[in-house]
Amino acid sequence: MLSRTHLAALAAVAIALTASAAISDPAPTTPISVLAAAPDSAWADIDPADLLVIDLARGGRVVIVLAGDFAPVHVGNIRKLARAHWYDGLVIERVQDNYVVQWGDPDGKRPLPPGVVSPAPPEYSRTAAGVLLAALPYPDSYADRVGASGAFPVAEAGDEAWLTHCYGMVGVGRDLNPDTGTGAELYAVIGQPPRGLDRNIAVVGRVLEGMELLAALPRGTGNLGFYANPAQRVPIRQARIASDLPLSDRPRFQVLKTGSDTFRGWVFAKANRQDSFFLRPAGALDVCNALPPVRAARRAEDSPEQHGS
Amino acid sequence: MLSRTHLAALAAVAIALTASAAISDPAPTTPISVLAAAPDSAWADIDPADLLVIDLARGGRVVIVLAGDFAPVHVGNIRKLARAHWYDGLVIERVQDNYVVQWGDPDGKRPLPPGVVSPAPPEYSRTAAGVLLAALPYPDSYADRVGASGAFPVAEAGDEAWLTHCYGMVGVGRDLNPDTGTGAELYAVIGQPPRGLDRNIAVVGRVLEGMELLAALPRGTGNLGFYANPAQRVPIRQARIASDLPLSDRPRFQVLKTGSDTFRGWVFAKANRQDSFFLRPAGALDVCNALPPVRAARRAEDSPEQHGS
Repeated sequence: MLSRTHLAALAAVAIALTASAAISDPAPTTPISVLAAAPDSAWADIDPADLLVIDLARGGRVVIVLAGDFAPVHVGNIRKLARAHWYDGLVIERVQDNYVVQWGDPDGKRPLPPGVVSPAPPEYSRTAAGVLLAALPYPDSYADRVGASGAFPVAEAGDEAWLTHCYGMVGVGRDLNPDTGTGAELYAVIGQPPRGLDRNIAVVGRVLEGMELLAALPRGTGNLGFYANPAQRVPIRQARIASDLPLSDRPRFQVLKTGSDTFRGWVFAKANRQDSFFLRPAGALDVCNALPPVRAARRAEDSPEQHGS
Repeated sequence: MLSRTHLAALAAVAIALTASAAISDPAPTTPISVLAAAPDSAWADIDPADLLVIDLARGGRVVIVLAGDFAPVHVGNIRKLARAHWYDGLVIERVQDNYVVQWGDPDGKRPLPPGVVSPAPPEYSRTAAGVLLAALPYPDSYADRVGASGAFPVAEAGDEAWLTHCYGMVGVGRDLNPDTGTGAELYAVIGQPPRGLDRNIAVVGRVLEGMELLAALPRGTGNLGFYANPAQRVPIRQARIASDLPLSDRPRFQVLKTGSDTFRGWVFAKANRQDSFFLRPAGALDVCNALPPVRAARRAEDSPEQHGS
């Protein structure tokens, strides 16, 4: 009895993220089924020049898609820092529960390589013109309109657009002076979306892979979640732009096109859950629960090399 | 230079959660300063009969305030289970990144003690009448009104009220059948608030202490984040209602009264940040960023016993 309850509870609490064929009779339209039925044409390759690949010294990889359309100078800096191998040997130095994981140069001793714009301009928002926003038809506490564009959650107010702080979004640590960030110090959100930071800091990307490597780190016991003991810091073996990695080691991702029928169907299915578990579909979806789906991709031409590596 | 930048970056990224006296000139009104100035009368003791205290076998304590006003039968069950020592020796069995940590009886073999209502009724929402909602003056994607009541985040639509799934909120795993949960299987939210679960599951509490012990656990690699290897499970030494613990071992908490001027001032300060770091105060606040502040409390009469233990 309890066993049955338990097994079902797995499906139950889990069902919001995962489809279960066993409980579909007849099969309802779900977020998962919408994605499964998507034509390949609904998926867009993410440019490997937009992927920052961080390999931890103890193993494990974090892949971040960069938002050059929203913070071009910061993203340019991050590419230059990666290409100069500047991040290599630096550390994750701060893990504050329900807030951020942060990495960089805790001793501040490593000189920036040539070409890095320091300080970078305050790219905290941009003009809405030119942003292809797939707007959600639901209100948001902080903005006139919210939705998705490319791989990112976006908010707009008037003619201003910005990336929102959602779980897994990546921003640039900065000084009190608004133009003192460079991209040398980065953080990822690991808790409640701190939307109050929106438009106050440069948001530069979104973690696509390895989020669990960041979010499951022990929380720092120092002030603001910094690791009190430097031995607790988590070393970064290397950080590279994916296009600079050998093909055999290069991650590939695709994002669901936010202009596609599939994306619209996915949003509708998420807002109006038909899975058996949901007795009361919410009839709504917030911006941080509508991050465009991303999938790992392999291209046919890579197969020989991938198998050979 | 970088060192200075870095040190300031700490303050910067951190400042959303922590006040920094060094950078206040003159001291602005901040969420922290509002709380620091609160009179004792603005704080209410949380009844120890409403606190579930979970001690992990390897050390560490998780304290959850129970929401008897929203899920009375489930909360009654949880009290009975704790008093029967039913949770003792059970385990945290599931950690799914950006979703939930779940604990209970993975083998489903432990019989429920007498008096536990199984299944419990579907306490997924209640009538709004009688809920003293401190409403936020900002829209929400999912509800007509949101705000706080007691120690909890609350949403309302029409004459219906429910607890919202925010980071750190605790719910009851259940079967597909809506009335098959009991309180034997519990989960805590460790990521993006899964608001789509609201009104579909009994929300029974909020973690007040020890959230970092749950959220930093290694993610399970099995289906739905279950630990594939039972050796990975995290044993629970004991779970008790705080009022059943000896005074010397009893946690005490106070919650800011949501009807107080201090709470209103705190919400305003959070929505309209005046800290030096914030160039663009959001002018808004969402329900999951407005969880009523809680503080550990010690009462004078406990001092002798606490010192003696």
